[in-house]
Amino acid sequence: MNINEKALYMHEKWKGKLEVNSKCEVNSREDLAIAYTPGVAEPCKVIAKDKSAAYQYTIKSNTIAVVSDGSAVLGLGNIGPYAAMPVMEGKAVLFKEFGGINAVPICLDTQDTEEIIKTVVNIAPAFGGINLEDISAPRCFEIEERLTELLDIPIFHDDQHGTAIVVLAGAINALKVVNKTKEACKVVVNGAGSAGIAITRLLLSYGFTDITLCDIDGILKEDSKNLNWMQKQMLINTNPDKRQGSLADALKGADMFIGVSAPGILTKEMVASMNKDSILFAMANPIPEIMPDLAKEAGARVVATGRSDFPNQVNNVVAFPGIFKGALKGRASRITNEMKLAAAVAIAGLVEDKDLCEDNIMPQPFDPRVSDVVSNAVLKYIPNK
Amino acid sequence: MNINEKALYMHEKWKGKLEVNSKCEVNSREDLAIAYTPGVAEPCKVIAKDKSAAYQYTIKSNTIAVVSDGSAVLGLGNIGPYAAMPVMEGKAVLFKEFGGINAVPICLDTQDTEEIIKTVVNIAPAFGGINLEDISAPRCFEIEERLTELLDIPIFHDDQHGTAIVVLAGAINALKVVNKTKEACKVVVNGAGSAGIAITRLLLSYGFTDITLCDIDGILKEDSKNLNWMQKQMLINTNPDKRQGSLADALKGADMFIGVSAPGILTKEMVASMNKDSILFAMANPIPEIMPDLAKEAGARVVATGRSDFPNQVNNVVAFPGIFKGALKGRASRITNEMKLAAAVAIAGLVEDKDLCEDNIMPQPFDPRVSDVVSNAVLKYIPNK
Repeated sequence: MNINEKALYMHEKWKGKLEVNSKCEVNSREDLAIAYTPGVAEPCKVIAKDKSAAYQYTIKSNTIAVVSDGSAVLGLGNIGPYAAMPVMEGKAVLFKEFGGINAVPICLDTQDTEEIIKTVVNIAPAFGGINLEDISAPRCFEIEERLTELLDIPIFHDDQHGTAIVVLAGAINALKVVNKTKEACKVVVNGAGSAGIAITRLLLSYGFTDITLCDIDGILKEDSKNLNWMQKQMLINTNPDKRQGSLADALKGADMFIGVSAPGILTKEMVASMNKDSILFAMANPIPEIMPDLAKEAGARVVATGRSDFPNQVNNVVAFPGIFKGALKGRASRITNEMKLAAAVAIAGLVEDKDLCEDNIMPQPFDPRVSDVVSNAVLKYIPNK
Repeated sequence: MNINEKALYMHEKWKGKLEVNSKCEVNSREDLAIAYTPGVAEPCKVIAKDKSAAYQYTIKSNTIAVVSDGSAVLGLGNIGPYAAMPVMEGKAVLFKEFGGINAVPICLDTQDTEEIIKTVVNIAPAFGGINLEDISAPRCFEIEERLTELLDIPIFHDDQHGTAIVVLAGAINALKVVNKTKEACKVVVNGAGSAGIAITRLLLSYGFTDITLCDIDGILKEDSKNLNWMQKQMLINTNPDKRQGSLADALKGADMFIGVSAPGILTKEMVASMNKDSILFAMANPIPEIMPDLAKEAGARVVATGRSDFPNQVNNVVAFPGIFKGALKGRASRITNEMKLAAAVAIAGLVEDKDLCEDNIMPQPFDPRVSDVVSNAVLKYIPNK
């Protein structure tokens, strides 16, 4: 069996990748009286007086919801809430295995922004955080912003920020390898969806100054058709030289390409037109924007992809478990930009200078230090309450 | 430490009585590729074509939500969703320990009927059933009815039907003990909330013919103030002799008292005014409507309470785990009245005739046969699809 056949076979065998287990034994009448009635009334009464005691007596302290409406799942697109379940269960598995966090998949039978917001607000009491997943742009931006305003628990859209944090970590290390600075680095981001926009925003806030956003029609510009409100907002701080034209035009003289776009759209010619010691993040999955060997032949110095069978895998799993671990530990009410930057720097720091080279800019997903290092970095930036 | 102190201590130690665990190992890149990307796309694609395949590949087949708005929790009243969490977690523990079912507590930050309905519909895709819990009357009736219409998974308000099923099971056995028939048995139900009404409806559908509903103002009647729509509806098939007056009036010449009301409201005089060989279900908790020894002195023959330290404990835990076990196994789209009646008869049947006596009309909660016996009974009444 190949991986796909094996995956289908195993999913049928598992019949769901998660189980909800009891932490307490119920073998006697006394057990029952302690875990359930009448004893359970005691923690209820304490929480009724002070709702923050929920962190002390309930699963809230270490449980999050993984929420999706199934509108932008993997490369599969809008497959709906039922078909999104295996992905959300998988995400919950990773939260547990990599971060020790209980995660409940919640797949929503609505794709209406207001209904999604209301539903998540309504179910929030049981959860210490909300991981939004695979919700299409631009709704994902509004949903995240509004939920962050409405709720006092952290909201994190992983497709945006998880990806942005890991790319920034890789970019920090890649710049060291090629000996360039963020201020002088001309960046082209291809793909103006949730990931591309979040990457751009995080890199700008870290101190990158020259980023140009492209989509399928080339460089984003004021009079592009069908720009959504977030894309319009991005025009303000990107493309400082007001370049126009295609992706190929944008790449001439660029130092870094960040692709969250489509397989094979980057040609050797485009790579050759970039500055010396160019850096590529070609993250289309499973087939990157350009294969690493071709990119190297065309002159790229560092090439990262989303794949585990090439060097420099960009994998969100080094970010999201540690981020929520830290946020839950510190009872953060939101994930701030400072926390995201700290996480990126911490992830970059996991590759020691002596090991840093073209083919080793990212820590390994299975590096056992990752989630604690990220968690501790995040914890330092939680404001005192 | 007494039970209450111990319960508070243990709840703080547990910090939540549930955990979400992974059923699959993620120790290697291949594990990751099977449980998550890229392999996970395979079950997604199958479900995208046929959403019923969710039962084959996701947790839906054996996972339910325990949903409450915290409006009527235990004897504590409207304590809200945060304070309700320990109870809902406890309920989820019982679903797992007694029925092998994964249950997720969902406490809603709204008590608006329409919002509750919408929220539950929106989160339904991940779940194979919904157990409603501790939602106040009369909203609980409408919420359950509407959700049953809107969703194709079973909806079950345990405060209503769990209690009704177990009381009916006890009533079946008690009638055997005193050698009376359901047709000739005059029943008084005291407490016209969700449990009292559900008990009345189930007993009527089983074949009881003479049931009188009372509340704090005595026998329910047309011109009672503040009757809700469900109580008004109950007037049609109850109180066939059109009696009027107090609970004491109702009990004169009655054969069975079913109390889901308040501590100590039943006097020895009232019990003495009932027919010979009277049967009492005095289920106010923790202090029953009358203590069993007093009731016996006044002439009652069979006395059941909600307490584990007296004989004949009426405990929902003998019903709800098996009901959902059967419903999930048979992929029932709803819990029909026939399924409830079958469950009650099956529970009654767990006490063998040779063991049946005044002080032994209910099976023990820890009887290991219970959930399978109930599940099998329910399974027989699932319509072919």
